[in-house]
Amino acid sequence: MKNDLFLRALKGETVERPPVWMMRQAGRYLPEFMEIKKKYDFFTRCQTPELASEITVQPIRRYGMDAAILFSDILVIPQAMNITVEMKPNFGPFLPSPVRTQADVDRVVIPDVHHELDYVMQAIKVTKEKLNDEIPLIGFAGSPWTILCYCVQGQGSKNFDKAKEFCFTQPMAAHQLLQKITDTTIAYLKAKVAAGVNAVQVFDSWGGMLSPSDYQEFSFQYIQQIIDALKDHAPVIVFGKGCWFALGDMAKSGASALGVDWTCSAPNARYLSGGQITLQGNFDPSRLLSPPEEIKKMVTQMINAFGKDKYIVNLGHGILPNIPVENAKAFIDAVKEYGI
Amino acid sequence: MKNDLFLRALKGETVERPPVWMMRQAGRYLPEFMEIKKKYDFFTRCQTPELASEITVQPIRRYGMDAAILFSDILVIPQAMNITVEMKPNFGPFLPSPVRTQADVDRVVIPDVHHELDYVMQAIKVTKEKLNDEIPLIGFAGSPWTILCYCVQGQGSKNFDKAKEFCFTQPMAAHQLLQKITDTTIAYLKAKVAAGVNAVQVFDSWGGMLSPSDYQEFSFQYIQQIIDALKDHAPVIVFGKGCWFALGDMAKSGASALGVDWTCSAPNARYLSGGQITLQGNFDPSRLLSPPEEIKKMVTQMINAFGKDKYIVNLGHGILPNIPVENAKAFIDAVKEYGI
Repeated sequence: MKNDLFLRALKGETVERPPVWMMRQAGRYLPEFMEIKKKYDFFTRCQTPELASEITVQPIRRYGMDAAILFSDILVIPQAMNITVEMKPNFGPFLPSPVRTQADVDRVVIPDVHHELDYVMQAIKVTKEKLNDEIPLIGFAGSPWTILCYCVQGQGSKNFDKAKEFCFTQPMAAHQLLQKITDTTIAYLKAKVAAGVNAVQVFDSWGGMLSPSDYQEFSFQYIQQIIDALKDHAPVIVFGKGCWFALGDMAKSGASALGVDWTCSAPNARYLSGGQITLQGNFDPSRLLSPPEEIKKMVTQMINAFGKDKYIVNLGHGILPNIPVENAKAFIDAVKEYGI
Repeated sequence: MKNDLFLRALKGETVERPPVWMMRQAGRYLPEFMEIKKKYDFFTRCQTPELASEITVQPIRRYGMDAAILFSDILVIPQAMNITVEMKPNFGPFLPSPVRTQADVDRVVIPDVHHELDYVMQAIKVTKEKLNDEIPLIGFAGSPWTILCYCVQGQGSKNFDKAKEFCFTQPMAAHQLLQKITDTTIAYLKAKVAAGVNAVQVFDSWGGMLSPSDYQEFSFQYIQQIIDALKDHAPVIVFGKGCWFALGDMAKSGASALGVDWTCSAPNARYLSGGQITLQGNFDPSRLLSPPEEIKKMVTQMINAFGKDKYIVNLGHGILPNIPVENAKAFIDAVKEYGI
C-alpha cells in the first residue's frame, strides 16, 4: 500500500500527520456523482460494479483522501434478507412491508451473502483494481440495531418510535431479528474482507436513541459479536452516533478505532474511551458551510485537540449534499498541510 | 402550597420521596385532552384561558402529579414577534415565511408581551384558581436557539440544517435574532412569574445538534441571560435535550435544576453536573410502552440511581401520544409508592 497512513493510525502507530476521509465522501455534494445519479437509479448504482467502483473513486481523484469507502448502502442487508427496500426520491428509504410481528420475523431469511450480495464483492474487486494499492478501501455495514430501526419503522424517523415499541413490547421477537441481522452481517463483512477491503466500519447511526442499558441489550451486544468475528480478519471501526455513553465499553471491545460525533469534544472522547484507542471524527458536517479559511482553522484546532497520533480525521456524520466542493477541499487540505 | 415537594426539591431540601411530573403531561395520550382537541384547533386551545387551564389540570385530576405545567407552546414567542406560525395537522409547526436573511431579522419585532401574550397570563390566573394552591404551576419557554431553529428552518427537522447554515454563514444576523428572542423570552417569563407561576423551565430541545463550542456561542450564552434575569424571581429549570456535554456549565449558571435525557445515566448526570444541583428526568418516553409492572420496577431503579433528594422524577422528553393511560399511571404511582 503506497499510502498506509490510515492503516497505521488504526494500529495506533506514530504518523507524520493523521489520515483523513469523510463519511459519505462519495455522494451528492460532488457534481460528478450527480451526473451518474441523473442516469442511474439508486439500486442500479449499488448493484453495478462498474458504477459503484467509479463513484467510490470519484472523491479520491478530486481530493486525494487517505482511504476510500465502497459506495453502497446499509440497507442492502435487509434487502438480501427478503425484506423489500425501496429508495424514494426526496424521501429516502421506504420498506413497504415493515417487520412488526413474530410472524414477520419468522419470514426474514438469513441469505447466502456470496450469492445475494455477489454484486458487492464484484464492486470491491473492480474498485481495488482502480485504486491500484494507492490507498486502503473500507467496507461497511449498519449495526444490527440500526438495520432493525429501518426494518421495523419502515422509513427514516426522528425517534424511531415504532422500532423502540417493537423492542420494548416484543423483546423476544426483536432479539431474534437482531440475531438474524447479526449473522448475516458477519458473513457479509467476512466476504467483503475476502474480496479485498482493508478495514470495515460498523455504522450505528441510531444507537444514540437508546438509554445506556437498552443500548447494551439491543445494540452493543450484537456489535460485539461482529467485532469478535471480524477482528482477526481486518481492523474494525465502530461508529455510534450519539453513543458517547458507550465509548468506554467500545474501547474494550477489540475494535481498532471508534468514531465520535461532534457533540463529544476531543478531551471528552479521549477520557470516555480510556485514552488508548484510535479515535475517528468529529467535525460537524454543517460546519463545512463556514468559509474555507475558517474550516481550515477549525480542522487544525481539532487535530491539536485529538492529537496527531491514534487519530483519523473525519466528519462526525455524513457530508451534507449542499456543501460547496471548495469547502470539502479546505477540510481535506487542512489535514494534508498539518504540521507543514 | 399544600404539596410543596417540587419546590422543596428545587431548593435541594430533603424530601420524603422525590416529586414527579411528566413533560407534555397535558397532551394527546389523554382521552379527555383528545375530546377538547376534536372541538378546538391548536391556537384556540392555547389562546383561550378556560381551555388552556382545563387542559393543564386534566392530568392532575387523573394522576395527581406534584406539579402542573401550563398548556401552551414554545412557538407563541415567534408568533408574538411578528413571525407567522401555523400548526398543521399530522405535520407539526409550519412557518411559511422563515427567517433567512438580515432583512428578515430586521423585520422581527420585540413585542410588548403583556399585550401580545396577555392570553397566557390570563390562562395562568385561571389555572392558579383551579389548582387552589394544591400544587405548584410551572411556566415555560423554548431556548433562544431552539426558537431560532423553527424560525429559520420553518418546520421540524432531523438536523435543522438550514438553521445551522444560517448561524454558520450569517453569524451576525443569527446573533441579532437570538438576542431579540432572548429579550422577548425574559420579558415573557417575568410576566408569567408575575401572573403566578411558581417556577419556569427553559426547553432547549435542539441544543444537542450543536458541538460544545457552538453550543456556547449560539445557545448557552442566551440561556445564561435568561437565568440571570429570572433566578431572583422564580426557580429556573434548564432542560437541554442531548446536552450532556453542557451539564457542567449549566450547574454553575444559577439554575435551580437541570433536566437530563435518558442517554445520560444517573451516575453520568451526577458526575457531569458536579453532584450538587437538583436533576430532573430521565425515563425514556418509549419505555412507557413496556408493561406497567416493568415500568414500576424501572422507575424504582431510576430513583435509586439518582437518589431521592435533589431529584425530580420526569421523562427524558415529552410523553408520546400512543402511551396507554394505565402505563402513565404506573409511572406516577411508582414514584408515589417509593419507600413505602
